[in-house]
Amino acid sequence: MAVNLFPPVAANILPVSGVELGFAEAGIRKANRRDLMLMRLAPGSRVAGVFTQNSFAAAPVQVCRQHLKSGGAIRALVVNAGNANCGTGESGLTASRRTCAAVAQLVSCAPEQVLPFSTGVILEPLPVDRIEAALPNCVTTLGENRWTEAASAIMTTDTVPKAASRQLTINGTKITVTGIAKGVGMLQPNMATMLTYIATDASIAQPVLQTLVKQVADVSFNRVTVDGDTSTNDSFVLIATGKAGNAEIADLNSAAAVLLKAAIVEVAQELAQAIARDGEGATKFITIHVNGAANHDEAVRVAKGIAHSPLVKTALFASDPNLGRLLMAIGNAGIANLDTRLIQLYLGGVQVIANGERASSYKEEDGARVMKPEEITIRVELDRGNVGTTVWTCDFSYEYVKINAEYRT
Amino acid sequence: MAVNLFPPVAANILPVSGVELGFAEAGIRKANRRDLMLMRLAPGSRVAGVFTQNSFAAAPVQVCRQHLKSGGAIRALVVNAGNANCGTGESGLTASRRTCAAVAQLVSCAPEQVLPFSTGVILEPLPVDRIEAALPNCVTTLGENRWTEAASAIMTTDTVPKAASRQLTINGTKITVTGIAKGVGMLQPNMATMLTYIATDASIAQPVLQTLVKQVADVSFNRVTVDGDTSTNDSFVLIATGKAGNAEIADLNSAAAVLLKAAIVEVAQELAQAIARDGEGATKFITIHVNGAANHDEAVRVAKGIAHSPLVKTALFASDPNLGRLLMAIGNAGIANLDTRLIQLYLGGVQVIANGERASSYKEEDGARVMKPEEITIRVELDRGNVGTTVWTCDFSYEYVKINAEYRT
Repeated sequence: MAVNLFPPVAANILPVSGVELGFAEAGIRKANRRDLMLMRLAPGSRVAGVFTQNSFAAAPVQVCRQHLKSGGAIRALVVNAGNANCGTGESGLTASRRTCAAVAQLVSCAPEQVLPFSTGVILEPLPVDRIEAALPNCVTTLGENRWTEAASAIMTTDTVPKAASRQLTINGTKITVTGIAKGVGMLQPNMATMLTYIATDASIAQPVLQTLVKQVADVSFNRVTVDGDTSTNDSFVLIATGKAGNAEIADLNSAAAVLLKAAIVEVAQELAQAIARDGEGATKFITIHVNGAANHDEAVRVAKGIAHSPLVKTALFASDPNLGRLLMAIGNAGIANLDTRLIQLYLGGVQVIANGERASSYKEEDGARVMKPEEITIRVELDRGNVGTTVWTCDFSYEYVKINAEYRT
Repeated sequence: MAVNLFPPVAANILPVSGVELGFAEAGIRKANRRDLMLMRLAPGSRVAGVFTQNSFAAAPVQVCRQHLKSGGAIRALVVNAGNANCGTGESGLTASRRTCAAVAQLVSCAPEQVLPFSTGVILEPLPVDRIEAALPNCVTTLGENRWTEAASAIMTTDTVPKAASRQLTINGTKITVTGIAKGVGMLQPNMATMLTYIATDASIAQPVLQTLVKQVADVSFNRVTVDGDTSTNDSFVLIATGKAGNAEIADLNSAAAVLLKAAIVEVAQELAQAIARDGEGATKFITIHVNGAANHDEAVRVAKGIAHSPLVKTALFASDPNLGRLLMAIGNAGIANLDTRLIQLYLGGVQVIANGERASSYKEEDGARVMKPEEITIRVELDRGNVGTTVWTCDFSYEYVKINAEYRT
């Protein structure tokens, strides 16, 4: 059902020197599917991450935070699908640490140099024995050219693996950026069980990498939403192996940093949009622009107010220009002293609302026409200030209910 | 599909002396259905109301606020279904005022003594000519014993008319309280297009009535949610005709006020619960208790966090004890410094989460058993303070999507 989203062509997904990927069938939840992925990083790689804001952060998220804080160079990432290891208390932390220890032994590093990730069902104990048993297979399959297979191994209800690459030249050095992501529901990353890993072979100083991971998340994954729910396991990790041989990027405002950031943002936005395109039950891909807000918070509130409204999302599914629901969603965003008489709203190129009411030029058949395509753009002009934002989402279909009513069966 | 909700038996819905109800087929949106309701109040009646917090308050809501503020004694209420008269700008205000003027002429009062209400599609002009043409029929049908028919005339996607009555004796005087409500979607009253009218024949001083309407809304309509969307037209009006002959209730803390408030709250809660039972596509009625919050705001955030989560609602629909989603929703409520290790969660009588993780006593078959019934109670203990709240909602089914994808067709 994914909207204009096609499986990545392996030839277009470029390897990143210093990153190897392997996988195995651990049988964590279902038999005969790859559900365990190992990423081995070359010595000298730098890693930074941002994680879920859900109060019930899963055990692996807690362990990731500890291991990143401890400052040891990260040498491996291990991801399992099928079980989130969340709501599992002290035994969940133990299970995540056992996973790290098993990886550490196989790749010859300390357990604190391994980051663990889990995605799947919440509140059930992680079958760590099966993970330990399957990890050697992950190691034997390690290779630099296996990004798309790795993207498949971390999927849950995703219908399409998600991967993207860019290449650029900085001061004569060729730099590669490649990322993979999973996540199609429980999805308003802030972060949501979205897992994303983007790696580059550029050399980047740790403080710059730390800032970059946040800035990139803000303009990509934090702008996509499927159902407004935020997962307990969301993680976005940015990796710089330094293998390209460029001069270390130590200043965020340097030309090299600006160029590289642009490429990373492109990869991140392509992956973020892929998540909405593959949103559970999605039949439409929706882009929501909000302009003229007084500040970033209110721009996001209005955009997400529209993106989260079940009534708007079901009307988009039906291609029904029941556009009063957009007006309702904007009015529901909780903006203090919102002067509705200043609001303009456009659907594609058609103005629907002029100065807070139905535009006199608006015709129902124009609304019906712009609601038909698989890709719809909604633009709101608030005329309160100069801040704008963009959010990506999908519609709300029978299929969403079906997928989530039957997820565990 | 309404959950354990049956059409009110007219004999159980008691007339309120001083309130007459009439209706007509105005053909506002569809032909051959009653879609216009008139309520005529005896001289001396007092009226107070609370209205939507949506920034796009509909024209009738704006006119209601003005007429209530102007202080003239309200003598009539007029309600149309099929068109919300919202996003209609100055011409919408004119249409609402024209409706009031037409009613005023028929019941011999000033236009400012009439309150208008509309519910239905947003962004379309109100066919006020048809309303004016049908109003005389409303007048000829006026009668004190027509509450259930009035409840039918204001329905939109409701499947069952909603009415409730209570009788009590205050200092030897028999007092009646009767109410009707409509609303099944775009529904998180604050207020949501919920329309509710509760009348009593008690004599109540205006300041007491004003306070009562807010207090009653807080423990009834503001605690029910179907989809988290808040309508542009929500209104709850409380009417006291004074016809019972009791001594005027002028002190909110008097025994008479406490007794009467309890009866009004009972009627309001029955109607609020009826709204969730008849929630669009509802197959289950869900009661969510949150206890041990530090303050009212966080109790409501946690309860509505659960009530609004599409993932929780689809799991409830499927009777699937995928209870990690409850944990996710609690963690997603945005409570600062929430110590998840203090949290207990019960589904019916079964403890699912103990101290923030899966209870060791919890068995999947127990979860499956308590997820089966049509009425499910979720209880969360936060152990942060002494404040609690209760919220009512329904599940999220294929039918919700169907109803809202096809609403206008």
